[in-house]
Amino acid sequence: MSLTEYPSRLLENAVNEFASLPGVGRKTAFRLVMNLLKRDPSEIRKFGETIIRLHEEIHYCSNCRNISDTPVCSICSDEKRDKSIICVVENIQDVMAVENTRQFRGNYHVLGGIISPVDGIGPSDLNIPSLEEKVRAGGIKEVILALSTTMEGDTTNFYIFKRLSVSNVLISILARGVAMGDELEYTDELTLGRAISNRNPYHQ
Amino acid sequence: MSLTEYPSRLLENAVNEFASLPGVGRKTAFRLVMNLLKRDPSEIRKFGETIIRLHEEIHYCSNCRNISDTPVCSICSDEKRDKSIICVVENIQDVMAVENTRQFRGNYHVLGGIISPVDGIGPSDLNIPSLEEKVRAGGIKEVILALSTTMEGDTTNFYIFKRLSVSNVLISILARGVAMGDELEYTDELTLGRAISNRNPYHQ
Repeated sequence: MSLTEYPSRLLENAVNEFASLPGVGRKTAFRLVMNLLKRDPSEIRKFGETIIRLHEEIHYCSNCRNISDTPVCSICSDEKRDKSIICVVENIQDVMAVENTRQFRGNYHVLGGIISPVDGIGPSDLNIPSLEEKVRAGGIKEVILALSTTMEGDTTNFYIFKRLSVSNVLISILARGVAMGDELEYTDELTLGRAISNRNPYHQ
Repeated sequence: MSLTEYPSRLLENAVNEFASLPGVGRKTAFRLVMNLLKRDPSEIRKFGETIIRLHEEIHYCSNCRNISDTPVCSICSDEKRDKSIICVVENIQDVMAVENTRQFRGNYHVLGGIISPVDGIGPSDLNIPSLEEKVRAGGIKEVILALSTTMEGDTTNFYIFKRLSVSNVLISILARGVAMGDELEYTDELTLGRAISNRNPYHQ
């Protein structure tokens, strides 16, 4: 079935909106809209209102730039967390990934991207000045760089390291090594090389 | 990354809404919402409003039950179309499929489903009484049954045929045969058998 002509402009508009989402083609978009149309009117309205509320009411934490329902996010306003350790991440997904490990009890700093000349993203497009300011203001003992282990991640790490090295804050980086469950045979030589040079004393 | 804890209730609500769509899991839903969040606020608002307008302003044509922006759809209100021929289809997608062939210039009648005891859909759940009424009111020369060639489609065809056979309207059914481009070797025996018994005189 080709979907060139829609019997309704409203239907077509809705299909266009869904088709604008990544990985959603026009056929899938049409199927999603038809599914919505089969629902209770109150449910369709709730769907639309939830999206509008998302846009109108969501905040980005004034301290760490994490997504939040309040001006300061629940992590930054949690008194039990150690404000002297900052974990620098690329985006909100990465905050959630680190939070899910339950291994980190400090605060975050969301860059909103990483330096990527190919995509035209330079240091000035990221939340790096506010990180420098935070460190300069004092009270920070450690900055953990938790960016992707890609060329762009490495570049960003290096840039932040250079900018912060004037202060006497400890700058650390995520351990690189063989992932849990990986077989040595299939581990790439860069990773394996890092794992060897970063080897740790064995203890149970 | 497991997505158990969201940093924001608004975000979580939006993810839940998207994840309620067919074929959209929680990870995909999260990705879609994050894509929305990166857009201009006006675009996010438009997305939500389009869905709400879809629910509030859409009509089902009072004549054929096709989806429409107006109380009577553009097909039923088109004076150039032949109102004496009615093509009976299961749903709106099928109206669009037949329209795309550009071979049919009559009107439609959308049943809103087909008889399916397994899914608990009986004749009373479909727009069959209004079809009977239309035929009884006169002015209809032909009713074309254009339902899927499945057990449920056949059952529905038979039911409608029985209900309409008291009138002297011509009841026809879509031709069944070998699909265009199909190789005989891979055509199932039911289809091939129908194609043989329904064979037509050859002409160019």
